[in-house]
Amino acid sequence: MAARASAPRGKKAYPLAKVYGLLEPGPVVLVSTARDGRPNVMALSWHTMMEFEPPLVGCVISNRNYSFDTIVATRECVINVPTVELARKVVQCGNCSGRKVDKFEKFGLTPEYGSQVGAPLVAECWANFECRIADDALVDKYNFFVFEVVKAWIDPARKNPRTIHHRGRGVFVVDGRILKLPSRAK
Amino acid sequence: MAARASAPRGKKAYPLAKVYGLLEPGPVVLVSTARDGRPNVMALSWHTMMEFEPPLVGCVISNRNYSFDTIVATRECVINVPTVELARKVVQCGNCSGRKVDKFEKFGLTPEYGSQVGAPLVAECWANFECRIADDALVDKYNFFVFEVVKAWIDPARKNPRTIHHRGRGVFVVDGRILKLPSRAK
Repeated sequence: MAARASAPRGKKAYPLAKVYGLLEPGPVVLVSTARDGRPNVMALSWHTMMEFEPPLVGCVISNRNYSFDTIVATRECVINVPTVELARKVVQCGNCSGRKVDKFEKFGLTPEYGSQVGAPLVAECWANFECRIADDALVDKYNFFVFEVVKAWIDPARKNPRTIHHRGRGVFVVDGRILKLPSRAK
Repeated sequence: MAARASAPRGKKAYPLAKVYGLLEPGPVVLVSTARDGRPNVMALSWHTMMEFEPPLVGCVISNRNYSFDTIVATRECVINVPTVELARKVVQCGNCSGRKVDKFEKFGLTPEYGSQVGAPLVAECWANFECRIADDALVDKYNFFVFEVVKAWIDPARKNPRTIHHRGRGVFVVDGRILKLPSRAK
């Protein structure tokens, strides 16, 4: 898919400096890619913030995944943050491979053009981070990619987004109540 | 602190193969260390699983933190998983430096001997993972340590442990309801 200049439908640009606040809590994410015009998406929980700005995100993406080769070849992807309403589709994305299935079509997900990368955004997700590989030094040893978020989008209409966190084997914990404490942390 | 053979008080050995299920959901953790007999602890959210077994955990620990030098020197630490009851103490640990404060004493936390490393466990935490540095290749560039969990402990008496997830600036989301979906994922 080609990049474009305007905002994806229903989305608003989100400050890169605030991306960490959405990924640091550890939500399951959907990583979307495109190769030869064919979009694909996988579910992933093994990620961590590595720098505030420009935001760097470390992700373990197994070389057994179809997305691995695409990311190595295209050097880009989109990290999408789904909310609990999408939980079933997230699991479905994890239960099959892009080698055999067009997951966007099969699970009723909508690929949207991004502005910086060729990989598609998953329109149904609350937030979308367009990424390029910043460092592949640990890819061979650990399948660990360091991505730079080059553009961030958020759905400003979502008032109470609740993300999901994977505890293994299809068990998820859903975001509960919010706690505010006097902190000096960023 | 010296290592010991028996289980820490109230704790039970936890299978290394199941550690990922506790860290993958992205809870805030307390990283504890000891140097020259002096224990210290810091709060941290920038971590990710990197391998199931032996469990590898990647953590970004800023070189501005007092713990950084200790970990580089001792090559070990304990990753402790606090639950929401400890949230205030977790934030207090993040609001000051071990350079000036004995945080265990000041915040009423209890250092416990581990069995494999000299760094102390935080007794009040739900789970404790004794760690050694497995790879420091990205420490200079990103303050990114790859730890191997060499021993894991859990409090078997905790029936409904709710962890906390940092959204930035002292805002936390607490674990809510559990969702079970038919997944082929580990």
